[in-house]
Amino acid sequence: MIAPPSAARAHGSARIGLPPMQWNAWGIAEEATTLSPAILDLVRSALGVSGDPRPAPTIDEVTVAPTRLADDDRAALADIVGSDCVSVDPQDRLRRAGGKSTPDLLRRTATEQDAPDAVVAPGTEDEIAAILTWCAHAGVAVVAFGGGTGVVGGLDPDAGRHRAVISLDLHRFDSLVDLDATSGIAVLGAGVSGPRAEKLLTERGFSLGHFPQSFEFATIGGFAATRSSGQDSAGYGRFDDMVVGLTAITPRGTLRLGPVAKSAAGPDLRQMVLGSEGTLGIITAVALRVHPTPPHAVNEAWHFASFAEGAAAVRAVVQRGTGPTVLRLSDEVETGVNLASPGAIGVSDDAMAGGVLAITRFEGDESLCATRRDLTAETLLAAGGTSLGAAPADAWEHGRFRAPYLRDALLAIGVGCETLETATTWAGVPALRDAVAAALTTALSRPADGLPDGSPALVMCHISHTYPTGASLYFTVVYRMGDDPLAQWAAAKADACAAIVAEGATITHHHAVGADHRPYLSAEIGEVGVEMLRAVKDALDPAGVLNPGTLIP
Amino acid sequence: MIAPPSAARAHGSARIGLPPMQWNAWGIAEEATTLSPAILDLVRSALGVSGDPRPAPTIDEVTVAPTRLADDDRAALADIVGSDCVSVDPQDRLRRAGGKSTPDLLRRTATEQDAPDAVVAPGTEDEIAAILTWCAHAGVAVVAFGGGTGVVGGLDPDAGRHRAVISLDLHRFDSLVDLDATSGIAVLGAGVSGPRAEKLLTERGFSLGHFPQSFEFATIGGFAATRSSGQDSAGYGRFDDMVVGLTAITPRGTLRLGPVAKSAAGPDLRQMVLGSEGTLGIITAVALRVHPTPPHAVNEAWHFASFAEGAAAVRAVVQRGTGPTVLRLSDEVETGVNLASPGAIGVSDDAMAGGVLAITRFEGDESLCATRRDLTAETLLAAGGTSLGAAPADAWEHGRFRAPYLRDALLAIGVGCETLETATTWAGVPALRDAVAAALTTALSRPADGLPDGSPALVMCHISHTYPTGASLYFTVVYRMGDDPLAQWAAAKADACAAIVAEGATITHHHAVGADHRPYLSAEIGEVGVEMLRAVKDALDPAGVLNPGTLIP
Repeated sequence: MIAPPSAARAHGSARIGLPPMQWNAWGIAEEATTLSPAILDLVRSALGVSGDPRPAPTIDEVTVAPTRLADDDRAALADIVGSDCVSVDPQDRLRRAGGKSTPDLLRRTATEQDAPDAVVAPGTEDEIAAILTWCAHAGVAVVAFGGGTGVVGGLDPDAGRHRAVISLDLHRFDSLVDLDATSGIAVLGAGVSGPRAEKLLTERGFSLGHFPQSFEFATIGGFAATRSSGQDSAGYGRFDDMVVGLTAITPRGTLRLGPVAKSAAGPDLRQMVLGSEGTLGIITAVALRVHPTPPHAVNEAWHFASFAEGAAAVRAVVQRGTGPTVLRLSDEVETGVNLASPGAIGVSDDAMAGGVLAITRFEGDESLCATRRDLTAETLLAAGGTSLGAAPADAWEHGRFRAPYLRDALLAIGVGCETLETATTWAGVPALRDAVAAALTTALSRPADGLPDGSPALVMCHISHTYPTGASLYFTVVYRMGDDPLAQWAAAKADACAAIVAEGATITHHHAVGADHRPYLSAEIGEVGVEMLRAVKDALDPAGVLNPGTLIP
Repeated sequence: MIAPPSAARAHGSARIGLPPMQWNAWGIAEEATTLSPAILDLVRSALGVSGDPRPAPTIDEVTVAPTRLADDDRAALADIVGSDCVSVDPQDRLRRAGGKSTPDLLRRTATEQDAPDAVVAPGTEDEIAAILTWCAHAGVAVVAFGGGTGVVGGLDPDAGRHRAVISLDLHRFDSLVDLDATSGIAVLGAGVSGPRAEKLLTERGFSLGHFPQSFEFATIGGFAATRSSGQDSAGYGRFDDMVVGLTAITPRGTLRLGPVAKSAAGPDLRQMVLGSEGTLGIITAVALRVHPTPPHAVNEAWHFASFAEGAAAVRAVVQRGTGPTVLRLSDEVETGVNLASPGAIGVSDDAMAGGVLAITRFEGDESLCATRRDLTAETLLAAGGTSLGAAPADAWEHGRFRAPYLRDALLAIGVGCETLETATTWAGVPALRDAVAAALTTALSRPADGLPDGSPALVMCHISHTYPTGASLYFTVVYRMGDDPLAQWAAAKADACAAIVAEGATITHHHAVGADHRPYLSAEIGEVGVEMLRAVKDALDPAGVLNPGTLIP
């Protein structure tokens, strides 16, 4: 049984300017965490930080760049959406000034900050169409805003060649538009948050089963625009796999596709909108495959002697098709760090013996769960695994949305913490992991401003999304920040991206392209691929107002 | 264990001009069939035909329109591919003059026929690029040709606004380019036929598992370009689901995508090439998910009291996710017609009692097969099914590539026979079946040239591709042909398409758009969707030489 997460809350306050997340940190203040003594000891001894807090301005100490929109502009926008739904208030704007990557959070510690010139919150598709028409004529760029959880610079208030940029907040598209219980299809508004989607569906006996780490705050529209992938992807697929239809408002008109599971009516245009990151149109509603609320679930964790052995084991599971809902594998470093946090994974150092931890979970009716568990266990046993029982998997499940809060606590004492991810074929997994880990370790150990002697870095990795042909690799990096942490991370990230490109892997498996990965897209899709994107962009958004600087090289 | 089909044969004779199929009928002459006395009695009594053969010209009696290419043109093409690989021989050209729809076959009974102006068979990607460059400059259109099994007019020798059209035969791209056994990824040339793909893979312990009715003659490139779907789609997915990478030569350059299972690096451009039907570029190689040759298989057939009951049952199976490899359901008419052919489905009239037949098949290792079979059987039993054992499913499997040969025998005695297909949500299935069946029955029962009193039509339907959210519907129509059978079928097809559009279903689930469904595409993807297609088309093929008249409205 899937319980609604503790931080679940209704999204979409009527008052503009209050997206659920804090302006300069992940999530809500009530859920903020402090570092445990064990973690504090670990980062002190391993990284040499003092543990003293770094100075950071309060929101009142921040000066936000003045809006570049004139009174006439604001009046024109108010004519479309109503004056209650347009704001140039600095705090409203600051709350939509970016996403929640570590660089985003570091930028929030400056005393002068950029922000979109206004926040506009339409309530209907017609209002969105009118806003886009006005923006195209007025030379004002548009950045769509859902939950604000992006981590690749896709929410940067970049006006491009235009004179201003607005944040188009979709929180009013917050309803379950339709539920076809026979077909298992729910149509959800783009502004519906993860918890609200599950709540609306659970009340009707269904679940979407999409639980990315951003789940508590991200929205349906954002999931679609960025090709999000949730922790239950082995069972329910990535978000893009769940999409059977969608509506997007483009400057050239409205695109309505599906719902249909599959078709041979030409190229699948849904797949052009998925991952388009607000550059081709504004997604307003998504028709999604949902399933009956699973009556039963089984968690089980496994020990493997090494990441290599564990990777071969989870590969065997997904290639045999035994049906786990969750299938994850941490490498040696990640497993060790988790062990250092007492109670975090509910298993002793001795039991792990330097090995690695895999998590499995099964959902469905009781016989389906039992069957899937047995076939999976048989496969993992044959591959050298040892069952650790439910406890470590339960612990993982319990804490699975907590990591971003931990990052805030680390950043506050000068410990850098960031994640990045990629995917490749199974044959490519070992070399890719080694190459990215080496790139990050080398880059972050180099002398930096304020760290003339360098400092070690901790690079953890896990497999969290598996396919018969390959897997994602998710890296978490912890390091000591120097005096210019933005430049320090930018250099490390660039080296990691170069390693990913050199290995022929994808620059992103589920974080999207944004501004941060844009320089690497040409290497992945080639010049002809870039021409295809530009052609569609020019056709649908001839004025180029939609999210300049994002995605398209 | 998957046995290679009896008609399996190596594709790709070195001599140009010999695609494997007959010029005016399906398949190879050795496999042609005659009608059984029972079928002959059925069509005589039900449709009132005499059973006498209709006159049809031999290939020597057909006049093919002279080539519009000058000697200089042919010399230019020969410079690129060698003179052995360019042909303007009328018989070579006639063999690429279309696909194998019933209208295609009816057109082959005329004594004067159109055909492409030349057949060109490149051997390398560079040669294809050079051909496209030459064609764009010379104003010559290009129709890519694989197995010639298309049924939607996508192979029509339509020069569009150009002065001539060539058939680009891909049979020389006939190799297994690469096999990554760890990742389960095979890269196959576009010209590899279904049987050759299975042979190349079986020798290495793998299978693709793609068995559409066109399997014996269609090619990898054609499967990709048309979004083919095979009879084992419940287990292995549609062809487009198997694709993890591809290479396409466009007039603007080469597009190489993947291999990667999934990515969030923007829109999935592979999904723009899949289903593009030769209008955006020439697919030369496809990277495909393959699986180890299944060591075990179980067939089982089921009886349901009605199509409605059976549809609810197969829906329960796919929504529960019990894992059949094949899952099919015939309606009452199709079940009845199959029963009328002794031995065809290995079950008696009495056992069926007016009900309908479902087929299941399970592949994998022994315990996986047993588990999947048991969970599926449990679900079907609970939904009102009765097991009929393996025999009817074995009979279906044995005969599953025979239907097009039967059609040739019917057409030869003046019995029209054609298929069409669509897909919709589960909630939409009953109304869609009724609407399309009614449209076809009404249209084909109307008086026609030579049939002033009209004639009954037999409309059969089955579900052959299932998804949690919906299913395909495949219709087979048998009727008495009038004196203008092309016009007669065109009218019926138009009514069926109108019914599909009115029900909000897709105009094609796996046959593609071609010329035949092109008038209906705008209704499905809207004007904005059409603009997206045109934008990509204009960017990649600015001269518009690639398959004019196909797909893009």
